[in-house]
Amino acid sequence: MVGKIRVAVNGYGTIGKRVADAIRLQDDMDVVGVVKKSPDYGALLALKKGFNLYVPTQDDIDKFEITGIQVSGTLEELLENVDVVVDATPGGMGAKNKQIYTRFPHVKQIFQGGEKPDVAEVSFSSLCNYKEALNKASARVVSCNTTGLLRLICTLGNHFKISRVRAVLIRRAADPREVKKGPINSINLNPPRLPSHHALDVKTVVPWLDIVTAAVVVPTTLMHVHHVAVRFSEGGVTREDILRVLEDARRIVLVKSAVTGIKGTAQLIEVARDLRPRNDIPELVVFEDSVHVEKDELMLFQAVHQESIVVPENIDAIRALTGIEPDPEKSMSKTDSTLGLSKKFFLL
Amino acid sequence: MVGKIRVAVNGYGTIGKRVADAIRLQDDMDVVGVVKKSPDYGALLALKKGFNLYVPTQDDIDKFEITGIQVSGTLEELLENVDVVVDATPGGMGAKNKQIYTRFPHVKQIFQGGEKPDVAEVSFSSLCNYKEALNKASARVVSCNTTGLLRLICTLGNHFKISRVRAVLIRRAADPREVKKGPINSINLNPPRLPSHHALDVKTVVPWLDIVTAAVVVPTTLMHVHHVAVRFSEGGVTREDILRVLEDARRIVLVKSAVTGIKGTAQLIEVARDLRPRNDIPELVVFEDSVHVEKDELMLFQAVHQESIVVPENIDAIRALTGIEPDPEKSMSKTDSTLGLSKKFFLL
Repeated sequence: MVGKIRVAVNGYGTIGKRVADAIRLQDDMDVVGVVKKSPDYGALLALKKGFNLYVPTQDDIDKFEITGIQVSGTLEELLENVDVVVDATPGGMGAKNKQIYTRFPHVKQIFQGGEKPDVAEVSFSSLCNYKEALNKASARVVSCNTTGLLRLICTLGNHFKISRVRAVLIRRAADPREVKKGPINSINLNPPRLPSHHALDVKTVVPWLDIVTAAVVVPTTLMHVHHVAVRFSEGGVTREDILRVLEDARRIVLVKSAVTGIKGTAQLIEVARDLRPRNDIPELVVFEDSVHVEKDELMLFQAVHQESIVVPENIDAIRALTGIEPDPEKSMSKTDSTLGLSKKFFLL
Repeated sequence: MVGKIRVAVNGYGTIGKRVADAIRLQDDMDVVGVVKKSPDYGALLALKKGFNLYVPTQDDIDKFEITGIQVSGTLEELLENVDVVVDATPGGMGAKNKQIYTRFPHVKQIFQGGEKPDVAEVSFSSLCNYKEALNKASARVVSCNTTGLLRLICTLGNHFKISRVRAVLIRRAADPREVKKGPINSINLNPPRLPSHHALDVKTVVPWLDIVTAAVVVPTTLMHVHHVAVRFSEGGVTREDILRVLEDARRIVLVKSAVTGIKGTAQLIEVARDLRPRNDIPELVVFEDSVHVEKDELMLFQAVHQESIVVPENIDAIRALTGIEPDPEKSMSKTDSTLGLSKKFFLL
């Protein structure tokens, strides 16, 4: 491949717009165009940011031009001129879009976690299996919750022998932009039957892991919170061992509650509003004070910013599929420094 | 003791008003009076229900009579004419009130879980330690979350050998009547440091238990939800074994999500609004579909109606302290049938 990797971003919602911005910050890839289905505020934003706007089909062009929004062409026209498509359309749409993508065999395909695993050759999480995705034709970046779990699991797994993982996911009910979703006043089991699908999704990347997850949805929009319990097959792991590993870990940041006064998601986001575009926190946030070791068990709370946590993984997936960077560490270093990810401690 | 037990209820808020109503439903006890500090809607409600209204001190009488609310006397005057005082004042007030109560040595004292354990001779949970409280001078009915955990733990502990309990508490942020508390949009660690105090509180009743708890607060008012993981020291416990025990258990009701469509707290409360005064659910609600057994571990979700779950335990505590009913089963049977608690399945 000569020059920069040419990328199409299909879908310009929560994930798509963030991935498009992140690609722009890289020196080895470029956004050729973004694809929008509806001529709404998202389309206007894309143009304002200087992206070329494409639409799914010829029929959609009129719909846009009636409202005065200028369109550069259709998805298929865009696919002719790119090396990679990042599908960031709503869950389940990616599988349908795949039928179009496969008509362009030179285009590598990246899907999001809302798709079923069989949409792609590999389910992807940079810290766990970057090399597995090298030069593959397609990858599925696992969902926000799964990415959060896998960052912790693969980081710990590099240092300690894990025998069991048990996680309870306290999920935000809707993203800030979603105006119709609830609940407003309920804690809903999601699903009522255990385990939740997140355990199965983690296993698409680390199939040998003994993991059970359970999830509830609660009335908040900002971030998910996970309680994770990890059992080690060897004793003697101390809290200090864990903290040392987490401090040095990529894409994990520790928040010191006692020092900063940060005890929840609203305060994390308030800090990010001052420091980050769109108050994004692509790092997995581990609450340091919550890290608790008892016998062979680690327990902790972590927070996941559902809108942005998968953005670094999408960038890495572009490099892995195209093979432009065979070294996971080099790809992640470039991604993390361009996106300005924190090291060690949040705000300290 | 001849005739009915005469009870004073000090505090007519969330717990006090429910305990007062519950006492009225018993044939072996009576409410002599309830004590209110402020001449507000709660005081008017108490009068409307026909309770004699008392105030903390002589000074408070004017405050009430200015607003036209008739007062029967002071707390001390009330204590002269009762056998038991149920303290349902805000957390921490009970310890201060105890100085007054102890000037009336014939009066048995019942406190709520918002007080520190040393406020009373015994921390109380009917299913676990009714007999320990027999004829004691004082008891502390443990908090709503602790009552929920203990109902499950003591029920299971009667049938299986428990080696560890790990629970994650997803707590409602405020009661429906509380107009100033938050958060509105955050998941807060409460506290950030593990374990949360609930584990310690469980141990005030079952000191030998290996238990770690963690808690978050979320923006909802209706019920708490717990994820509870129980490890057994012997293998071979099946899901069917667990369900059989829970079906037959007192004060625990199973909700079948797949059959009823009930997947969260709003739906539980909606049913209770049709069936129960104040939509109270004094039973511990276990989501049957969530009951999951893997190797030596049980995991499940349960819901706790924070406003009413401790009411049956307060009634039993009155019988235990006065010694009027030495048999825990007989006391609980009377309480449960008068309060109309469900058996086996919620709504089925």
